Amino acid sequence: MRLVTYTLGSSGARLGALVNGLVVDVEQLGASGGVTWPSDMLAFIDNSVTLLPALRDALEVANGRFPAGSAVAVEDVKLLAPIPRPRKNIFGIGLNYRAHVAESAERLDTDKDLPKQPVVFSKPPTSVIGPGGAIQHNARMTQQLDWEVELAVIIGKTATRISTDKAMDHVFGYSVMIDISARDNRRAGQWIFSKGMDTYAPFGPCIVTADEIADPHDLRLWLTKNGVMKQDSNTKYMIFDIPVLISDISSGMTLEPGDIIATGTPEGVGAGMTPQEWLWPGDVVEAGVDGVGVLRHPVVAI
Amino acid sequence: MRLVTYTLGSSGARLGALVNGLVVDVEQLGASGGVTWPSDMLAFIDNSVTLLPALRDALEVANGRFPAGSAVAVEDVKLLAPIPRPRKNIFGIGLNYRAHVAESAERLDTDKDLPKQPVVFSKPPTSVIGPGGAIQHNARMTQQLDWEVELAVIIGKTATRISTDKAMDHVFGYSVMIDISARDNRRAGQWIFSKGMDTYAPFGPCIVTADEIADPHDLRLWLTKNGVMKQDSNTKYMIFDIPVLISDISSGMTLEPGDIIATGTPEGVGAGMTPQEWLWPGDVVEAGVDGVGVLRHPVVAI
Repeated sequence: MRLVTYTLGSSGARLGALVNGLVVDVEQLGASGGVTWPSDMLAFIDNSVTLLPALRDALEVANGRFPAGSAVAVEDVKLLAPIPRPRKNIFGIGLNYRAHVAESAERLDTDKDLPKQPVVFSKPPTSVIGPGGAIQHNARMTQQLDWEVELAVIIGKTATRISTDKAMDHVFGYSVMIDISARDNRRAGQWIFSKGMDTYAPFGPCIVTADEIADPHDLRLWLTKNGVMKQDSNTKYMIFDIPVLISDISSGMTLEPGDIIATGTPEGVGAGMTPQEWLWPGDVVEAGVDGVGVLRHPVVAI
Repeated sequence: MRLVTYTLGSSGARLGALVNGLVVDVEQLGASGGVTWPSDMLAFIDNSVTLLPALRDALEVANGRFPAGSAVAVEDVKLLAPIPRPRKNIFGIGLNYRAHVAESAERLDTDKDLPKQPVVFSKPPTSVIGPGGAIQHNARMTQQLDWEVELAVIIGKTATRISTDKAMDHVFGYSVMIDISARDNRRAGQWIFSKGMDTYAPFGPCIVTADEIADPHDLRLWLTKNGVMKQDSNTKYMIFDIPVLISDISSGMTLEPGDIIATGTPEGVGAGMTPQEWLWPGDVVEAGVDGVGVLRHPVVAI
């Protein structure tokens, strides 16, 4: 199933299921069947063990015929980030693709050896923007604004000290995140400031539930700048795969429903180009994970 | 004013004001005067511009005589962290006291030069524990569990690109945080994992509103392990003071009501001792900021 958070006209944020180009409002679909379903993605994830099969059944029963007013064409809604306001900072993973470790070591301040454990950092909820949102370029802060396409993993169930063989049970679904970085804003090696600024986490366009992704470790992920391919790789090249990331983070930090892990980026970032390339106002970044979705964002001066 | 979050018997978390050894329930006090006041610290901070003077007036009018059932002795309640569940990761500031920069450079992997800009990192909401809560010692993860007492600043008003001269208008109040670190769990220099584990952010016991602290840059802060003084300094030795921290963070990352900035620790951490000292199960850490409050936490094996 593909779940989105959207607004329609002047509505607040609503939870929808994407079905053949339609956005079906989850709360309204439930109401038509006499059940109370949430209008909010986080509330849905909190109760996904029961809600996900129930929604799947209801969509199957409806078979494309939805109650009046509960389904609209996806072109007619505005998609927000699927979780517009995460409950904590996004967990980012640095240096998780071999060729990106190499380009980073050559051009940035990181080590050339592969990391022995996942390199975890964070991006605050205020960095999230939805599909199409403007990536802010503040020339007073940065002259080195860079791109990174990533597969985002959405946690479905609380995880404390989870072994790798149980880890995938804790995955609710997948999405796309662009991890924007101001490379010239690192602080004593800490990345939160350089990666956590407002608008630096384009996120969406939907969450694809885990059951729909046959193998999350075999997904093409790519990014273009102004239509020119810059990153083009596959999640199979992750150094630490998703079970290892979940097991590792949860060995110390409890993961909770709705938590987001941005699993790292492959090679092809601007810092690694010869000469180096950066994002500037007027640029357009497009990025996707095949089978999950595509994001497209303008860069604007502030 | 001193505000706390507490439970009484089997109650959920409640918001209280500390008055002469009594915890006065804010919602109940409001109800006795015919107004609706929140029972939650974050809801109070969100509307503090009107609620804070109104509560102050009501407490003054009550003059120690509170409606039946709305006030209990502080000994009879259980204090939680004043914000039991922050809305995002806590902003931590590394290397913000000169003598701590020196001891860190000697014993850890940090630079001996003073940082040119605040070194920002984060601790997730899941790391927060309230007064008296157990600090977990997981011997499978760490043999280098360390202490750091810090003044915590609580943001009261949204701050985006705020100048230093306006920054203090955005402070709601102050509290105490112990920034617990597993020094042997740094990851490519990133600190979130080593400082963000469950129970690594003892926080409280109350929030003292900004109007009660004459000068937040002249407060003694100290920490003992098993009754022996380890840290004993003053917030006047901060390298980057509070206006600079707020201005700096908000230059890129919007600060929001209820956000917490742990402003860094002075010298005297375990890593800096000769020989080095660490926390072990059975130890007790006590830490305070004069005029704000004292925390006392046992270390327990898990």
